[in-house]
Amino acid sequence: MTEAGPPAEFSLIARHFRPLAGPGSLDLLDDGALLDPPPGRQLVFTSDAMVAGVHFLPDDPADSIGAKLLRVNLSDLAAMGATPLAYLMTVSAPRDTGDAWFAAFAAGLARDQARFGITLLGGDTTATPGPMTLSLTAIGHVAPGAALRRIGAVVGDDVWVTGTIGDGALGLLALQGKVADIDGWLAQRYRMPQPRLGMALHGVASACMDVSDGLVQDLGHLCRAAGLGAVIEVGLVPRSPAALAAGQAWLATCLTGGDDYELVMAVRPGRAGLLTAAASAIGCCVTRIGRFEAGSQVRVLDSSGAVISLDRPGWSHF
Amino acid sequence: MTEAGPPAEFSLIARHFRPLAGPGSLDLLDDGALLDPPPGRQLVFTSDAMVAGVHFLPDDPADSIGAKLLRVNLSDLAAMGATPLAYLMTVSAPRDTGDAWFAAFAAGLARDQARFGITLLGGDTTATPGPMTLSLTAIGHVAPGAALRRIGAVVGDDVWVTGTIGDGALGLLALQGKVADIDGWLAQRYRMPQPRLGMALHGVASACMDVSDGLVQDLGHLCRAAGLGAVIEVGLVPRSPAALAAGQAWLATCLTGGDDYELVMAVRPGRAGLLTAAASAIGCCVTRIGRFEAGSQVRVLDSSGAVISLDRPGWSHF
Repeated sequence: MTEAGPPAEFSLIARHFRPLAGPGSLDLLDDGALLDPPPGRQLVFTSDAMVAGVHFLPDDPADSIGAKLLRVNLSDLAAMGATPLAYLMTVSAPRDTGDAWFAAFAAGLARDQARFGITLLGGDTTATPGPMTLSLTAIGHVAPGAALRRIGAVVGDDVWVTGTIGDGALGLLALQGKVADIDGWLAQRYRMPQPRLGMALHGVASACMDVSDGLVQDLGHLCRAAGLGAVIEVGLVPRSPAALAAGQAWLATCLTGGDDYELVMAVRPGRAGLLTAAASAIGCCVTRIGRFEAGSQVRVLDSSGAVISLDRPGWSHF
Repeated sequence: MTEAGPPAEFSLIARHFRPLAGPGSLDLLDDGALLDPPPGRQLVFTSDAMVAGVHFLPDDPADSIGAKLLRVNLSDLAAMGATPLAYLMTVSAPRDTGDAWFAAFAAGLARDQARFGITLLGGDTTATPGPMTLSLTAIGHVAPGAALRRIGAVVGDDVWVTGTIGDGALGLLALQGKVADIDGWLAQRYRMPQPRLGMALHGVASACMDVSDGLVQDLGHLCRAAGLGAVIEVGLVPRSPAALAAGQAWLATCLTGGDDYELVMAVRPGRAGLLTAAASAIGCCVTRIGRFEAGSQVRVLDSSGAVISLDRPGWSHF
């Protein structure tokens, strides 16, 4: 005889993840979730995985890990100009992961669900003999045809970025004791990216993506999509006071490190005012750092106009 | 100066995953994918993760790993009565994973995409210092209100299952050398589940789910959802010739092992003919194995009507 009581795995889901579950999730009790698509809208999907020791530090606070998992995916929705709707998540956790870890992880998600207007739709929780491995699929929506794309830059468009560049990569180095981080700004930027959701960029940016693997490399994606090159002036690249305090030795890291989760955009010169207004509306700054040009290369110029040589353009897993 | 050529990670995606990409994927070149929801349909979402050494054997053929990843999620769509539409996938691979592995993995997905009418919408590829870890989010659609649910069984409903029960769990044991598997049937069932898609079960099954963590445990989910118990007669539980050949010593494994990916359903006695017809239409068998009753327990009876005691009802990760 077998009592129809839930095993530990389902109890864990009920305690920590069911409180995050929103409309259509069926309380995480079924094999799938149901969603009535918002009428007249196109859906936008993105999936990102995060592995302990690769995308976050194993001893990062669990609530920040939950928040980062959600935010890196929301940053992809922001890059498409989409409004967040719901998400699914898989958690592959070492067997000795404590209940307190799951509680804090879920608390980080709960805070950001409220902040960004998104709820949990479904997912899976499994054990792993390896490091904590997380994946999240975010669902958003846009007006049909209004999604921002990587393709679309033309010669003469300016290159713009939101926020400041390089903090995320320096934050990782700060947490590893390699860079000074007096007030914790850099670590916070590494752990808590700010997805630039809600900017009215349709008709303003001609191309857009988020900077997750290094500014120079990611700008290269906009260039390849357009069959163009670009030139950026290093003195124009916005760096935070903390990044500047780290010193010029870390300049290349700022330009090619990952984890910025800012937007890089192609914008016609006449639309700069609209762009600034769209950024102001969400309390964000935007900075012009260069322009698109004929060619196939991303050139980075120093203050004298000389090309800066970089060892690598950005992060690659393989 | 930095040549705007793709780094190795993007070249890998281009070689192996771009050929799988379908409508709305934007060739996997953007931050997200776009989907126009089928008009007048509800969307169904499910996410499952698979970890090497937990959900598959590290030396399983890579094409079967790709197929299993897709099929375990399609089995969840089948359990909801949904039609497959598209999927997103994350792959966290050890850095020494060879190109041949990715090629075979993608080939397994390609075959099953054609078989099941689904295409790749997006995803993420990362490195991991741990075991190969995969996740997949499958998107399907149903007529509004027609999704099958775990809730809905009433006293007097019969318990039905598709296919045969226990092959998957015995297949894992066979691959570990613990169970004989003369013609490879059991191993094939472990590696290549058959999602029972396309059965017209709306209005036929009053409750439904897929058996992934053990028949007795999963039937317990249908019971809890309905506030009922159930009784199954062990002699009625359909087992394959290979499972029967393994011997009665493995009976409990068949009843409580995972990886069946068959459907377990509550069906009013008067709807048995409709159920059989729905199964026949997809070339599948269905078998009545018991009935729902008042109570809160899943009782398994032997041929004399005595209750069989089981150590555990099924698989739990924690």
